[in-house]
Amino acid sequence: MPAGPLMIIGGAEDKLRKRTILTEFVEASGGPDARIAVIATASSLGPEVVEVYDALFRKLGAAEVVSVRPQSREDAHDPELVAELEKATGVFMTGGNQLKLSAVVCGTPFGDAIVAAHQRGVVVAGTSAGASIQSSHMVAFGGPGSTPKQRMTQVAAGLGLLRSSVIDQHFDQRNRYGRLLMIVSQSPSLLGIGVDEDTAAVVEERDGHEVMRVVGRGAVTVLDPSRIVTNAYEAKRSSPLLSSGVVLHVLPAGSRFDLTDRVLLTEPARHDPEEAAELAEVTRDLQRMARDIAADDVGPAELRRRQARRHHRTEPPHQDGATA
Amino acid sequence: MPAGPLMIIGGAEDKLRKRTILTEFVEASGGPDARIAVIATASSLGPEVVEVYDALFRKLGAAEVVSVRPQSREDAHDPELVAELEKATGVFMTGGNQLKLSAVVCGTPFGDAIVAAHQRGVVVAGTSAGASIQSSHMVAFGGPGSTPKQRMTQVAAGLGLLRSSVIDQHFDQRNRYGRLLMIVSQSPSLLGIGVDEDTAAVVEERDGHEVMRVVGRGAVTVLDPSRIVTNAYEAKRSSPLLSSGVVLHVLPAGSRFDLTDRVLLTEPARHDPEEAAELAEVTRDLQRMARDIAADDVGPAELRRRQARRHHRTEPPHQDGATA
Repeated sequence: MPAGPLMIIGGAEDKLRKRTILTEFVEASGGPDARIAVIATASSLGPEVVEVYDALFRKLGAAEVVSVRPQSREDAHDPELVAELEKATGVFMTGGNQLKLSAVVCGTPFGDAIVAAHQRGVVVAGTSAGASIQSSHMVAFGGPGSTPKQRMTQVAAGLGLLRSSVIDQHFDQRNRYGRLLMIVSQSPSLLGIGVDEDTAAVVEERDGHEVMRVVGRGAVTVLDPSRIVTNAYEAKRSSPLLSSGVVLHVLPAGSRFDLTDRVLLTEPARHDPEEAAELAEVTRDLQRMARDIAADDVGPAELRRRQARRHHRTEPPHQDGATA
Repeated sequence: MPAGPLMIIGGAEDKLRKRTILTEFVEASGGPDARIAVIATASSLGPEVVEVYDALFRKLGAAEVVSVRPQSREDAHDPELVAELEKATGVFMTGGNQLKLSAVVCGTPFGDAIVAAHQRGVVVAGTSAGASIQSSHMVAFGGPGSTPKQRMTQVAAGLGLLRSSVIDQHFDQRNRYGRLLMIVSQSPSLLGIGVDEDTAAVVEERDGHEVMRVVGRGAVTVLDPSRIVTNAYEAKRSSPLLSSGVVLHVLPAGSRFDLTDRVLLTEPARHDPEEAAELAEVTRDLQRMARDIAADDVGPAELRRRQARRHHRTEPPHQDGATA
């Protein structure tokens, strides 16, 4: 059985209108058969947040929604909470403080059960803090700014559902290029992934590759530092970093990207239907002209005049060919 | 005579403490022989702004500072104002509204005189709006955000002192990746240059290449869209753009970058003096060991013991060689 999809949501996903992302999550969880576990450990408003998602997921057709909210590493060893994850067909991690979330769950039976759910094919989704924790390396906290500066952010260990990566969220809205660039400059084996609000990176395994599809209103920004030239190993505290040669991919909804090979998967080109209809007409005209030349041996100028008359009269071709 | 240096300043340059950038500008203008023309057309507080720079440049050693502030295209045809630029050894354009600046000066005798000053070797500097106008294509205005979105910004014609480029300023502070990415996605022949506050891109001509050096507290971000894959020619109004494969260079103070070939110019590696001293000592030890082996024919273990004793006693080498 292949691993389940990951849904990495950049925060502030639409809950009132089209609900594109949450609808896709409920469907991936099994729709009318869905049994969704909501993990609100990151949030300081746990019960209230669970209530919102409970109502939403049921409205979108889920059969059952349960709250599993360990508040300490001791809770995260509770077999009853772990058992809830074993029965889930979908896991959803809320926003809040990602360092609290990772500090409570990573490396516990509860954390292992999230990883196991993913591995047995269950969809694992998370928004904001719940997005960050999915990567192997997690942005713990850090300030805004476009320019990477030494020590402007900190890395902690995430769940590692997504290999060799670091995820950041609220990317468009909170000016987070700097902190993501700092991390990939210091760790160029990682791929930096910045997810905008109301946007999800949906990652699925395809032939051993992690393939990402973008859903929602914003974009997913990928920073590939494979060929970086940097001074991040020696720059002084708070000084801007040299980060030269990072390859940047901004990917709006509908884009597909191979995270393993780090390449855009291009779609077949879209055709404009009007342009196609026009081209078909020109092709018919040229074919008719060729037939006329063969039949009458008249000059091209006379043929163009005949064509103009045909278009003007808009008669069907087999008739006006005879009267020309 | 080669063209003069350009100083492209990202706004809010330090005026009270080290004044690194303004000091370099006054020196490039000729120091005690400097005759600086301040162009405050962009600013709504023209006379006050001129007063500030007048005081600063004189304090930094300039002989003379003159205000030249056309307020209309008619002013920009005034031969007296043009004559001031012809006598200047340095030109400084203030911040403010860059679209007002370009609308008043570009394509007038006054604008031509700025270009002519640059071409005869005079340093031309500008901060904020005065930075933007130096590129061939100018960001006219536009909102913040990290993700490029269709029509989030507008392009107007700049002075073109810097070829095939678009400059943005306050880059770190005002979350301007999005608008610069939108412009290079629509115009992939341009190089996008984002300059942080209190930071300058100093561009000089070297063997027909435009070579940039970074000065100041922040960084200069270069976006090279040469190999971009984008949908910017067909994306709908306000939707995020596909901008895949843009090469990103973040360049702090001291970096040098060839804007013509779009490559980082690397410096010789810096050596840590402590590490160098240690290496020299190891090298001396190894040479001594080789001499000892040749003289005594003893085993390496015994030699290492002798070396340990030497270090312990810290005697000069020519003596302890005899007593070992």
